[in-house]
Amino acid sequence: MDASGYFENMVGCLNRLPGIGMRTAERMAYRLLAQPDTLLRDLREALDRAADGLRCCERCGAVTTPDRNPCRLCVAPERDDHIICVVESPEDILILERSGGFKGRYHALLGKLSAVQGDGPADLRLDHLVRRLARDSVTEVVLALNTDVESDATAALIAERLRPLRNVNVTRLAHGLPAGSGLAYSDPVTLGRAMAGRQSVG
Amino acid sequence: MDASGYFENMVGCLNRLPGIGMRTAERMAYRLLAQPDTLLRDLREALDRAADGLRCCERCGAVTTPDRNPCRLCVAPERDDHIICVVESPEDILILERSGGFKGRYHALLGKLSAVQGDGPADLRLDHLVRRLARDSVTEVVLALNTDVESDATAALIAERLRPLRNVNVTRLAHGLPAGSGLAYSDPVTLGRAMAGRQSVG
Repeated sequence: MDASGYFENMVGCLNRLPGIGMRTAERMAYRLLAQPDTLLRDLREALDRAADGLRCCERCGAVTTPDRNPCRLCVAPERDDHIICVVESPEDILILERSGGFKGRYHALLGKLSAVQGDGPADLRLDHLVRRLARDSVTEVVLALNTDVESDATAALIAERLRPLRNVNVTRLAHGLPAGSGLAYSDPVTLGRAMAGRQSVG
Repeated sequence: MDASGYFENMVGCLNRLPGIGMRTAERMAYRLLAQPDTLLRDLREALDRAADGLRCCERCGAVTTPDRNPCRLCVAPERDDHIICVVESPEDILILERSGGFKGRYHALLGKLSAVQGDGPADLRLDHLVRRLARDSVTEVVLALNTDVESDATAALIAERLRPLRNVNVTRLAHGLPAGSGLAYSDPVTLGRAMAGRQSVG
C-alpha cells in the first residue's frame, strides 16, 4: 500500500464510525496527520488502552472490563432475571440505576433507528436481544427509550420483532407530565400523551 | 486508570477531532467497543500505518511520506518560489494541479474559520504561512479558497495578517460566471460578483 492508499484506508475506517460522512472523515484524517505528536499519538494510545482494557458486556452491552464480562449488573444475584429493561445507550443504564426504580437486568441497543445517521436495524443489538429472550426465562421487556420520533420508531420495531414471543410481555415507560412541573410548562405532545394515558384515581 | 477512565479518555480524544462534539464522540466510542474485532481493530491498524507511513508536508501541509518531506511539489526545481497559492484542503492542491494554471508553490490551511465546527485562527496553518513568507522570497500570495461565507471570513483574516508584509502582494482567484454556463443558471450572488468584477474587453 502506498501513501494515498494509507490515507484512503484511514478515511475509510473513520467513515465507518456512526454519524461520520466522507467529508468529515477526510477532515478528521487531515487533522490527525497535522498533529502527529499530540492528537494522532493520543488517539492511538486511547484506542490501544480501550482494546486492552475495555469490553462491551457480552450480555447487556454496557462498558466493562475483560475480567468482568458479563458485567457486575448482569451477574448480581439479587436482581430479577425475569425482566429486562431495553435502553438506547449504556449511559442510560447508569441514569436508571440512580433512580432506583428497577431491579431487573438491562440490555443496551447501542443506538436507535436513524435515517440521518444512516443507522438501520442491523446497527442495533436486536438479534442479540431476541437470542437472549429465547435462552433466558424472561417474562417482561420494558422499553426505556427516549421520546423522540427516531426512538418511537425503534420501539415500534422492537415490539414487532418480539410479538412472536408469546410468553414475553412488552411494556414501555409511562409518558406524561414530568415531576415538579405544571401544565403551563408542558408542550402539546407531552400534554396529549399525558391525556391519552390518564389513570383512574378512584 | 480504571475502565471508566479508559472510556472517558477515548471519548475525550475523539472529541478533539474537528466537528466531533461530546455526544458524537460517545456514540463513536460505544460503536468501537461494540465491534472490537472489526471496526476498532481496523481503525487501530489504519492509524498505526498512518503514523508510520504518512506525514503532513512540513512546508505545504499536503499528505506525503516520511522519505519525501518536504513533498514532491515543494522541492520541484522548475516551480516558481516567488508565488504561493493558499488552499483550504490538500485535495484542493490536486484539483488546481489538474487545471494546469499554476506553477508556483502551495500552502494548505487544513481548515477554515468555522463557528459551527468550532475552528478558530489557531486551527489553521496560518502562523506557519507567515513564517514561510518571512523566510522565503515570496512576492505574491494567491488565496484560492472556496466561495462560501466561512471561506470569505478566512480570506479576510489572512489578508489582515499579511498586510504588514509590504513586499507581498495578496490576490485571490477571480469570482464570476463558471465556464460552460449561462446567466439563467447563475445565482444572484455569483451574478453580483461577476458584475462587480467586470473587465474591459476594448
